[in-house]
Amino acid sequence: MFSYPFSTRMQNVTSSAVRDLLSITQNRDVISFAGGLPGEELFPLQELEQAYQKVFRQDRKALQYGPTEGDSELRMRIEGRMREKGMAASYENILVTTGSQQALDLLGKVFLSPGDTALVENPSYLAALQAFKMYEANIVAVQTDADGMLLDELEQKIIAHHPKFIYVVPTFSNPQGKVWSRERREALLHLAIKHDVLVVEDDPYSELRFTEEEPVPLAAIDQAGRNVIYTSTFSKIVAPGIRIGWITGPAEIVKMMVRAKQSTDLHTSSIDQRALSYFLDDFPLQQHLCRLREEYRHRSAVMQSFLAKHEQNLFQWVEPKGGMFLWVSINKSIDTALLLHEAVQEGVAFVPGAPFFVSQAQTNAMRLNFTNASPDVIHTGMSRLMTAIDKVMATRVHE
Amino acid sequence: MFSYPFSTRMQNVTSSAVRDLLSITQNRDVISFAGGLPGEELFPLQELEQAYQKVFRQDRKALQYGPTEGDSELRMRIEGRMREKGMAASYENILVTTGSQQALDLLGKVFLSPGDTALVENPSYLAALQAFKMYEANIVAVQTDADGMLLDELEQKIIAHHPKFIYVVPTFSNPQGKVWSRERREALLHLAIKHDVLVVEDDPYSELRFTEEEPVPLAAIDQAGRNVIYTSTFSKIVAPGIRIGWITGPAEIVKMMVRAKQSTDLHTSSIDQRALSYFLDDFPLQQHLCRLREEYRHRSAVMQSFLAKHEQNLFQWVEPKGGMFLWVSINKSIDTALLLHEAVQEGVAFVPGAPFFVSQAQTNAMRLNFTNASPDVIHTGMSRLMTAIDKVMATRVHE
Repeated sequence: MFSYPFSTRMQNVTSSAVRDLLSITQNRDVISFAGGLPGEELFPLQELEQAYQKVFRQDRKALQYGPTEGDSELRMRIEGRMREKGMAASYENILVTTGSQQALDLLGKVFLSPGDTALVENPSYLAALQAFKMYEANIVAVQTDADGMLLDELEQKIIAHHPKFIYVVPTFSNPQGKVWSRERREALLHLAIKHDVLVVEDDPYSELRFTEEEPVPLAAIDQAGRNVIYTSTFSKIVAPGIRIGWITGPAEIVKMMVRAKQSTDLHTSSIDQRALSYFLDDFPLQQHLCRLREEYRHRSAVMQSFLAKHEQNLFQWVEPKGGMFLWVSINKSIDTALLLHEAVQEGVAFVPGAPFFVSQAQTNAMRLNFTNASPDVIHTGMSRLMTAIDKVMATRVHE
Repeated sequence: MFSYPFSTRMQNVTSSAVRDLLSITQNRDVISFAGGLPGEELFPLQELEQAYQKVFRQDRKALQYGPTEGDSELRMRIEGRMREKGMAASYENILVTTGSQQALDLLGKVFLSPGDTALVENPSYLAALQAFKMYEANIVAVQTDADGMLLDELEQKIIAHHPKFIYVVPTFSNPQGKVWSRERREALLHLAIKHDVLVVEDDPYSELRFTEEEPVPLAAIDQAGRNVIYTSTFSKIVAPGIRIGWITGPAEIVKMMVRAKQSTDLHTSSIDQRALSYFLDDFPLQQHLCRLREEYRHRSAVMQSFLAKHEQNLFQWVEPKGGMFLWVSINKSIDTALLLHEAVQEGVAFVPGAPFFVSQAQTNAMRLNFTNASPDVIHTGMSRLMTAIDKVMATRVHE
């Protein structure tokens, strides 16, 4: 009997806490605020059906092997959408990926040799950390406040670590739902240019904004187009199952990513790509986005109402201006990893805050997703959560 | 101006010769025998349309994020197909991948640290070499004859290099269309067990057999189920654009690959997976395979007829018993890389043999794909190829 000779990089990889948790709660009567799932009842099923039908009736070629870069029609539509938001995108430099998760993996592949540093926000998106760790990277966290990374610390760490890139989710971040201020965005760019560092802007949520305010993407501030790599996805605004995201940036970088993707999976499903291209032509996406924004804002409000009406000062949170998550800190320094066990007993799940931190983990926070449950279900789930919290609080009093 | 700080692994990656060539010939009036593309006119469009329609009408959940392992329904159908071929597959150990190319990439990811050795056939599948090189592997070739790897050399190299795995395409190999003999298959397994080495069986073509003879997969010979990792795909028998392949093997290995895939792209398109599952339920696949086999055998015969009727003894080739490729050696030691330029002038393309070799490259060989062109087009293309060859021969005579 021999044990299999896995690569050293796999020693850095443990199964994600979020995923493990999801799988625990999946088959029980547990209301989950844990995942980052959009609302299924909002998927545009009929219009997608029509778009796929078009592919099979008109585009035999879409069933054949296609270019690694992606479907040209789809890339042109992505270019159009980016230009509308003030980004100087060109479809030649857009690479279609299997969700934006693959964009993060390809970033790791083309930039990170073992020991190379990536700077990230603290806390940061878990699956990005996983993707970078897979390449044996040194992940260094920069502390943040409500407006973004702390600039002095950022510059010190750029100088100390010569990072390959700085990874940020500046608009409705995961897990905190934070929005970087315009000033902080410009300062980040300024430092990146000053120190010749790349910035990776991960932007899956910006379309899901609840106010009129539209944060300016870093990719629109980077006029020279040399320092920002931008990635986004259709997972949150169309459907995750279609697995279509994209990444764009300086031509030299995208070219290298295309080479990496070629040996990774040749290309993303060309059936899905062509169907999405038709879908974007025919579907009133702006109208759909309005509906998503309205519905998600409402769900977010229902969730917050439970926090607001509970015992005074127990919770701290910032009202989300968009995105999918509510980040809640519990004042009485309850360890949310322990709370989770009680919560699952009561029939509700969330993600404890600690795993999102690279260092100085906050143990009394939790991430609540408000997009995947109807207002009624949120109602029931939040009641259960409050019961769990009260129980844990009561235990503490008796201790 | 700074140049971007790419990872060391990207230094091993050059764009594939096959791909570069395809892109050259794509937009001209060039008949291409270069790619590894199935015949588009044989795609089951209507039945696929119906299968996708079912997804949108019945399976809202298929549009949501899904499990990394893949759609359970699809995995059960794959299990069924494997069991029919005598392999002891279990759907729990089947990981759905974005084409079998991703299976090769994940293999590299979970096994290959920089400097680790993979043993391969010489010549071998180009894109597999690329995938392994991306992980800075040491690729060592084992010479082959008509029946498979040479066993003495194989054992010597296992002992000398302690390879992480031995990668083979035993049935209708790419590029040579070769079939390993039963004896050689058993001997390979015997050596693998004796020396505690893993064997990766890449099996994309076995369904495309032109004779009654069904070669036994290595995965069916490996009774203990500890030494063989098996990968295959629906690209050649349904359509490549759907990008669905799979990999299976010992549970511990598949579990590690699931972790690797999680950070790579979360999962393969769940829309495509569920549609394929419906398709396999409703579609008379065996009948379709009969049609593919008949058609491809015919195309292969048309192609060979040109070789047979040309000047005696100029060509050497083995009649393909299946698969997609005809491997032709030209006796007069013409360098096929040079011949390609003349051929493209005449309006036909192929892949020169040399790039498929890891060492001791054969420069007078070419790989001709016979599945992507109709018999008429093969006729025209082969006429052009013969003209190109005659011209190059004439030049040589005058030299």
